[in-house]
Amino acid sequence: MNVLVVHAHPEPKSFTAALRDQAVETLQAQGHQVRVSDLYAMNWNPVASAEDFTVRDNPEYLVYALEQRCNSKEQTLAADIQQELEKLLWADLLILNFPIYWFSTPAILKGWIDRVLVSGICYGGKRFYDQGGLRGKKALVTVTLGGREHMFGEGAIHGPLEDMLRPLLRGTLAYVGLEVLPPFVGWHVPYINDSARQQLLENYRQRLENIGEDQPMQYPRLDQFDDRLYPLA
Amino acid sequence: MNVLVVHAHPEPKSFTAALRDQAVETLQAQGHQVRVSDLYAMNWNPVASAEDFTVRDNPEYLVYALEQRCNSKEQTLAADIQQELEKLLWADLLILNFPIYWFSTPAILKGWIDRVLVSGICYGGKRFYDQGGLRGKKALVTVTLGGREHMFGEGAIHGPLEDMLRPLLRGTLAYVGLEVLPPFVGWHVPYINDSARQQLLENYRQRLENIGEDQPMQYPRLDQFDDRLYPLA
Repeated sequence: MNVLVVHAHPEPKSFTAALRDQAVETLQAQGHQVRVSDLYAMNWNPVASAEDFTVRDNPEYLVYALEQRCNSKEQTLAADIQQELEKLLWADLLILNFPIYWFSTPAILKGWIDRVLVSGICYGGKRFYDQGGLRGKKALVTVTLGGREHMFGEGAIHGPLEDMLRPLLRGTLAYVGLEVLPPFVGWHVPYINDSARQQLLENYRQRLENIGEDQPMQYPRLDQFDDRLYPLA
Repeated sequence: MNVLVVHAHPEPKSFTAALRDQAVETLQAQGHQVRVSDLYAMNWNPVASAEDFTVRDNPEYLVYALEQRCNSKEQTLAADIQQELEKLLWADLLILNFPIYWFSTPAILKGWIDRVLVSGICYGGKRFYDQGGLRGKKALVTVTLGGREHMFGEGAIHGPLEDMLRPLLRGTLAYVGLEVLPPFVGWHVPYINDSARQQLLENYRQRLENIGEDQPMQYPRLDQFDDRLYPLA
């Protein structure tokens, strides 16, 4: 497999960075090709803007997705986007590796999503969910957070973590056609001791060694809906 | 009321900008004080990093929330954060006004959340949900999106919009203690004609004129949970 790890943490010595390194080491040892986009180290620009396009379909009025469609076709996207898009299209497995900020991705990673998952290639028209442009590839979300495991789940104070991550897991990764594997979660990371952290890294190693056997999460399929996207009986 | 409108759209002539202007005009006409943070116009930096702190509790290892706590207490946050935080604390009503990107906020707005909702002031320890640091204030999310209304809701292809917006509505705004009003939604905006847009603006005006009567959405209260945040029977 070709694996792209997109990593987003402002502290280079963070435990989240240790998870990134564990993924690289484990997957390479299994013979996979691994590339890493370390967004903080790259000084990644997360702001979607008119500057992302070297030509404009409509220079007077910016519809971002429309310009993505034109510029991706003509390969006139900004160079930083084009480079990330090539890595994404090369990958069989995308790993997003980040600390949860406000029950979602840090802004720098949200901006990777906003700018790199371009309309026309990753989705567009009726090409979404199981028909998305990245179908055939897989995605894994690897997160760290401060909360304890009992604070999440049915009836828990924050509800299921997967519900909080819905716009990412379903609305983004499944939307572009990726098979979304269950997230790998490091609970309570800022507060646990070194031995608990080592155990988490070991759990992650075992998870990654058997990643091929993971069953993807279930999301809508377009054949359950009619041409106007109303649900079929 | 004091109202802060945080606006995030890369096109100054967008319909989302027209919604911003409608809010300013309507609320001022009712005698409210209104301030606008136009994140694209401000060239807002959305990336949470060590540069956000002019002093460091731990210069060797960045725990972002911990440095927020120390620097907010000492008023040593970066000037751009401090300015936004002062506007937020001044406001009785916060309006987030944005186009939906990937079923959530554009990265530039996510970075306003990451950097401005500082630990120690907006939340911290047992100060969250109904005990959050911003309790007594209200929040309204005003969004535009490409999808049609029938694509959202129970059984619809994307499920309820409120479920997609859960990390924002519940995990962010309700988390810091804000009373979260039901979102105002402009459906299918890139594809509707001018008269439909005028109708949306008129609907928004009427909504805002009666905003004081809106009932907030219901979220967890800490008195439903024990000291370790397990649910009480």
